[in-house]
Amino acid sequence: SKRYTITLLPGDGIGPEVISVATNVLKLAGSLEGIEFKFQEMPVGGAALDLTGVPLPEETLSAANKSDAVLLGAIGGYKWDKNEKHLKPETGLLQLRAGLKVFANLRPATVLPQLVDASTLKKEVAVGVDLMVVRELTGGIYFGEPRGFSTNENGEEIGFNTEVYATHEIDRIARVAFETARKRHGKLCSVDKANVLEASILWRKRVTAIASEYPDVELSHMYVDNAAMQLVRNPKQFDTIVTNNIFGDILSDEASMITGSIGMLPSASLGESGPGLFEPIHGSAPDIARQDKANPLATVLSAAMLLKYGLGEENAAKRIETAVLDTLSRGYRTGDIYSDGNKLVGCKEMGEEVLKSV
Amino acid sequence: SKRYTITLLPGDGIGPEVISVATNVLKLAGSLEGIEFKFQEMPVGGAALDLTGVPLPEETLSAANKSDAVLLGAIGGYKWDKNEKHLKPETGLLQLRAGLKVFANLRPATVLPQLVDASTLKKEVAVGVDLMVVRELTGGIYFGEPRGFSTNENGEEIGFNTEVYATHEIDRIARVAFETARKRHGKLCSVDKANVLEASILWRKRVTAIASEYPDVELSHMYVDNAAMQLVRNPKQFDTIVTNNIFGDILSDEASMITGSIGMLPSASLGESGPGLFEPIHGSAPDIARQDKANPLATVLSAAMLLKYGLGEENAAKRIETAVLDTLSRGYRTGDIYSDGNKLVGCKEMGEEVLKSV
Ligand SMILES: CC(C)[C@H](C(=O)O)[C@@H](O)C(=O)O
Ligand SMILES: CC(C)[C@H](C(=O)O)[C@@H](O)C(=O)O
Repeated sequence: SKRYTITLLPGDGIGPEVISVATNVLKLAGSLEGIEFKFQEMPVGGAALDLTGVPLPEETLSAANKSDAVLLGAIGGYKWDKNEKHLKPETGLLQLRAGLKVFANLRPATVLPQLVDASTLKKEVAVGVDLMVVRELTGGIYFGEPRGFSTNENGEEIGFNTEVYATHEIDRIARVAFETARKRHGKLCSVDKANVLEASILWRKRVTAIASEYPDVELSHMYVDNAAMQLVRNPKQFDTIVTNNIFGDILSDEASMITGSIGMLPSASLGESGPGLFEPIHGSAPDIARQDKANPLATVLSAAMLLKYGLGEENAAKRIETAVLDTLSRGYRTGDIYSDGNKLVGCKEMGEEVLKSV
Repeated sequence: SKRYTITLLPGDGIGPEVISVATNVLKLAGSLEGIEFKFQEMPVGGAALDLTGVPLPEETLSAANKSDAVLLGAIGGYKWDKNEKHLKPETGLLQLRAGLKVFANLRPATVLPQLVDASTLKKEVAVGVDLMVVRELTGGIYFGEPRGFSTNENGEEIGFNTEVYATHEIDRIARVAFETARKRHGKLCSVDKANVLEASILWRKRVTAIASEYPDVELSHMYVDNAAMQLVRNPKQFDTIVTNNIFGDILSDEASMITGSIGMLPSASLGESGPGLFEPIHGSAPDIARQDKANPLATVLSAAMLLKYGLGEENAAKRIETAVLDTLSRGYRTGDIYSDGNKLVGCKEMGEEVLKSV
């Protein structure tokens, strides 16, 4: 039987609750496919700050790097909001992404037939939306140097950051995006601001160059402001979107809200080699933490992405995906996706129902 | 009687058609309020490139700077898409904004009762949306130095831009935003990415400092990714939004699409003193140019903003706004906002109907 070591990073807020559910689902789906897991739990984010004084302890990163995949709950909370930048939970997450070298962030946004009413978009606009945002995750303005505070020639304070991309950074994310589009519906839309930014001009040039390796994928380009509009006007026009770190942050959140159920959406962050990082796209929701109200399905589906993209265990992944759809079809709903005629359940009970369907 | 000189910049695509309609409406509304206009037409964008070889001729900028207000149609088109950066129509627009020092871009996004069905959002989500995006327009990553292309330590090509804000740039746009919120419903939401970017940390600090001058305005802060979601989830929560140049580009386009009728939305760009720049937010739509199909109402409403914000002529502005609503109530619609039971008209006829209502 196959054995994998999984690093669990529950983090803050609802993180521990949803990780606990996802771990049970992962165990069961694995065992049915002859897979055994060793789980190691480590602190990150606010939890790590309280325990060790830093948002990403060295032990956490090295344990994560030595494991086969990393499953993260959520990070952040009011308690640490006023911390200085290097002591923010968010900084721990950025250090984790950089430390694992996971440059490719895959964020699917799918409107499930069972949940189409949850979208604020009209039914005819929302039905059938099924897109994937491929976001560059370890470059651009998030990490660009120089950055900081300084004084300008008038003695005034300035704050500055650098948006910068090198050829190889664009090439490798473009390849991931073309591969992703190839496995989907063969359409890739690259989003940039090449009418204004030099970093985007290079982005467009390199994505266009890499396209010649993928003649079967249809490539288009779109400016980011237009993309933000088109996601609202007609999200069905998109199959796969590839974009830089900051535009990807904005557009993937917009796309997720278009599905109306961000409590349902998983993500995968992958590198050239080494373990991938898998996490729900929702936040730590401190206001409902420890009340058994959280929707664990985004984390359960992140565990499915972990199996599929992280370990290549497609069968076990499929089991989980099918179990989630089945549980929804049987009418189980947490509060965030509840609608009349369904059965309202808490985080734990939702987990038990998914287990029944695995 | 009062006299004003207005610089008309028809630009490209549908620009000339919509400017022609708006000019007629401006003339009539003015004359009914004892205002006389002198119009001077100048080239910009692709039109200027074809005529003079540059996208913003010196004569255009100096004429604009000497006039009382500037009304722009639209710029850009396929023909110039492959031009180098300094020879792109868009570059002319950026030079115009910088040359007029119009740092404050006001972009209303209102769902008109007559057009609520045009939104892709569910009726209950769209009805009553009435927000204003105040976008910083002459700073940030659009203009920040250093920028360009270079080679990194591995001999690879890099493309880079600088996101930078100085205290006075933030302070002055914050004041415009607080003043705007004060005249609206007293709520201001400042959008940034202060959990990641130093430029945003300074932004948040200065906006918070300026807030003490406006105790009657309720200030909140939101991260840009969350703002992109909240605009889809519940746009009615927003009154006035203030944000930097690039986030404002993205969010104002998203907000405009939420109204479903971007052919209806005007904008005003204002400086400390000197003439303001007024333009529809839609593009040059080269595919329908010279076919009498364009919706001139965004430019007509930009002329109303010109009267109100540019010249302080509130009565004449009100005449135009009322005339547009009246024309819509009488059932006249261009193709982009047409729905069953209304009267489909072209650009010119729409202009004539508005004139009847002025
Ligand atoms: C928490 C924050 C630093 C993070 C980001 O901006 O990447 C989050 O918004 C995300 O998208 O995962
Ligand atoms: C044409 C382009 C340079 C411009 C911008 O990015 O500012 C446009 O998108 C706008 O919002 O007016």
